[in-house]
Amino acid sequence: MSNKNEAVLTQEQQVKVNEQVEALMRGVVEVVPEEAFRKKIEKSVLTGKPLNIKLGMDPSAPDVHIGHTVVLQKLRQFQEFGHHIQLLIGDFTGKIGDPTGKSETRKVLTDEQVKLNAQTYVEQYGKVLDMDKTEILYNSHWLGELKFEDVLKLAGQMTVARMLEREDFNKRYKTGQPISVHEFFYPLMQGYDSVAMDTDIEVGGTDQTFNLLMGRQLQDAYGKEKQAMLTLPLIEGLDGVRKMSKSLNNYIGIDESPNEMFGKSMSIPDELMMKYYKLATDIPMEELEMLEQGLAAGTVHPRDAKMKLGYKFVEMYHGVAQADEAKAYFETVFQKRSLPDDMPVVKWSGDSDVSLIDLLVELNMQATKGEARRMIQGGGVKINEVKQEDIKAVVTIEDGMILQVGKRKFTKLTI
Amino acid sequence: MSNKNEAVLTQEQQVKVNEQVEALMRGVVEVVPEEAFRKKIEKSVLTGKPLNIKLGMDPSAPDVHIGHTVVLQKLRQFQEFGHHIQLLIGDFTGKIGDPTGKSETRKVLTDEQVKLNAQTYVEQYGKVLDMDKTEILYNSHWLGELKFEDVLKLAGQMTVARMLEREDFNKRYKTGQPISVHEFFYPLMQGYDSVAMDTDIEVGGTDQTFNLLMGRQLQDAYGKEKQAMLTLPLIEGLDGVRKMSKSLNNYIGIDESPNEMFGKSMSIPDELMMKYYKLATDIPMEELEMLEQGLAAGTVHPRDAKMKLGYKFVEMYHGVAQADEAKAYFETVFQKRSLPDDMPVVKWSGDSDVSLIDLLVELNMQATKGEARRMIQGGGVKINEVKQEDIKAVVTIEDGMILQVGKRKFTKLTI
Repeated sequence: MSNKNEAVLTQEQQVKVNEQVEALMRGVVEVVPEEAFRKKIEKSVLTGKPLNIKLGMDPSAPDVHIGHTVVLQKLRQFQEFGHHIQLLIGDFTGKIGDPTGKSETRKVLTDEQVKLNAQTYVEQYGKVLDMDKTEILYNSHWLGELKFEDVLKLAGQMTVARMLEREDFNKRYKTGQPISVHEFFYPLMQGYDSVAMDTDIEVGGTDQTFNLLMGRQLQDAYGKEKQAMLTLPLIEGLDGVRKMSKSLNNYIGIDESPNEMFGKSMSIPDELMMKYYKLATDIPMEELEMLEQGLAAGTVHPRDAKMKLGYKFVEMYHGVAQADEAKAYFETVFQKRSLPDDMPVVKWSGDSDVSLIDLLVELNMQATKGEARRMIQGGGVKINEVKQEDIKAVVTIEDGMILQVGKRKFTKLTI
Repeated sequence: MSNKNEAVLTQEQQVKVNEQVEALMRGVVEVVPEEAFRKKIEKSVLTGKPLNIKLGMDPSAPDVHIGHTVVLQKLRQFQEFGHHIQLLIGDFTGKIGDPTGKSETRKVLTDEQVKLNAQTYVEQYGKVLDMDKTEILYNSHWLGELKFEDVLKLAGQMTVARMLEREDFNKRYKTGQPISVHEFFYPLMQGYDSVAMDTDIEVGGTDQTFNLLMGRQLQDAYGKEKQAMLTLPLIEGLDGVRKMSKSLNNYIGIDESPNEMFGKSMSIPDELMMKYYKLATDIPMEELEMLEQGLAAGTVHPRDAKMKLGYKFVEMYHGVAQADEAKAYFETVFQKRSLPDDMPVVKWSGDSDVSLIDLLVELNMQATKGEARRMIQGGGVKINEVKQEDIKAVVTIEDGMILQVGKRKFTKLTI
């Protein structure tokens, strides 16, 4: 007689379990604890019940980049195995803004803004995940209902010393930078979300390890089964050094235009290329191994490998036709370092210092100042191939200066 | 023309202000900040509006002792100057017990128990304060209403580093003893009470300094006028070393019988006597100075000075007649080391080891075992002038042993 607490799997089920575990652990930095992770998969295969797989997100307007897709790819794998994806929008903190009122940058988001941002997530994540099978949850639903008494219970599950072990807190505490007491609640809230959502497995970057562990601890304290946690590597940005992020402007956004995406891919440092391939594409491992060998042996040129990567990204997020176009454009405009032949030339007779917006309108490259402003904000304006993002920029006119708006509109200035 | 923000006091009012400030600062360790304290008194004298004077208390069943009266005497002074006393019962923490569920000793108090304990406070404090003019507040009224959002705002007013400066937290953190995150809320709650109560001046022992400062900081953060704080010395207990407290059994309770109170006063260490006089009685300073000089010069015997102190305590908490009686009793029973003449003598023929309860019943000093037990628990049983408090005590009978029950019942044993 078998122990009724132990899963008894048929051979066929055992094969399924192995297949899931093997695939889901690919590219993962850490699974904690591995044994519990496998047990959960076993139980799911045995009962046919999908597992709840959580990913937490902050509620500010998202601009999803390739760095985020490392985790999204993993979620897609879970989804393909039939598991249930829980996208948690941390709107509670967004709705209260900065509780101390000290920071002006952390503005309070309205319900409407939160929903709007969530919609943007849905659109962007939809390029990787099947959003029809993805649940979107808002933690204000449960956190907003907690009273002081509940909050004390939550805070009581954690010691100050343990909290100060968290890397960023530790660093700030040791260097005398202030940590506000309310900040201790951010990991506690994130952990409590797992309690409220009955999460089985939480996925996140390695920088989330502390917070994911909090979920385990709090689920245990609240009498729930502890989640397993699965951390994925952080991808360095285009600078090759720091974590890819919007604020460091070292990212490839998945909503960027095909040409932008392709062009940025070409600036990935050689030594990071394979990491991007492995973590941010779904190209089979065997194929990547061959590519890597070719690079090592010198039979594949890094530039060609990178073009293939750029092509792949555009294909994933825009489609094959766009990928073909972007590749052709790159070859024409950048790789051959030639600019279009038919570029209009304008002799500048105005002020030598002129606002960028006025310049664009003056040159008929944009119809109105409003359009010009939006184009700059949208990243569509370049001077001498350098993107201009400051709508208040004042340009000093130089002979031979080349202005570019969008993909195809060029003007050369002479003085 | 005078600045309209500045109080313009008549000479008569100025005299009143000086009188209050001088009297209220007597015996005080620290007033923070002194300038604000005076300004508040000035404003009160000018407008005729009383100040809100707060004292916080924990909600467990109180047994008020002479140590507490140091603060109560100060409150009485405020009351005599017409100010408004706010007794704050910290029932919120009592009602939630230990939020972590780890400590069994911190039981949850029901509304009824809280009210009952508050009533006990009223009765005992009523011996010092005019309770008709004293407001009793319960912090569950406002703290129980706070939501997570409000709690985060509260927590955001304090940094972790500042919190860890608090003496007890600091010690525990440094020695590796765990501090639960929720514990940070106890001082925050105490401070928030001052916000909710519009407290002008908070009074407390020197061990409350951190918490009283919290009130100032939080009032400021919530846009209220900051309270001044006034700390009073802690009185050492009868052991002469540690703070007077019930748990250390080194206290004189103000609810104790006149004889007990008088007797305990006689055990105050000589070197602490003047401190008790100054802090716990309302005897005018000039009189105390004379007494102190007499003691120093040897013209007053310490025993006589102590008897006067014991007499004063009994007078304060029981009345003059009781003070006279207690003094007479002490002189008869203790000081002259003589025992009553009419003491019955019983020849003991029972076991040589006998339970104290059985012994009392056997000797007809108590009618039933239940009565005997209650008398022991009430501290009314002595053997050879030593109080017996263990209801399970087993007595080894000795020749000449003297048993005493209550004030007047004696039995001498022979074997």
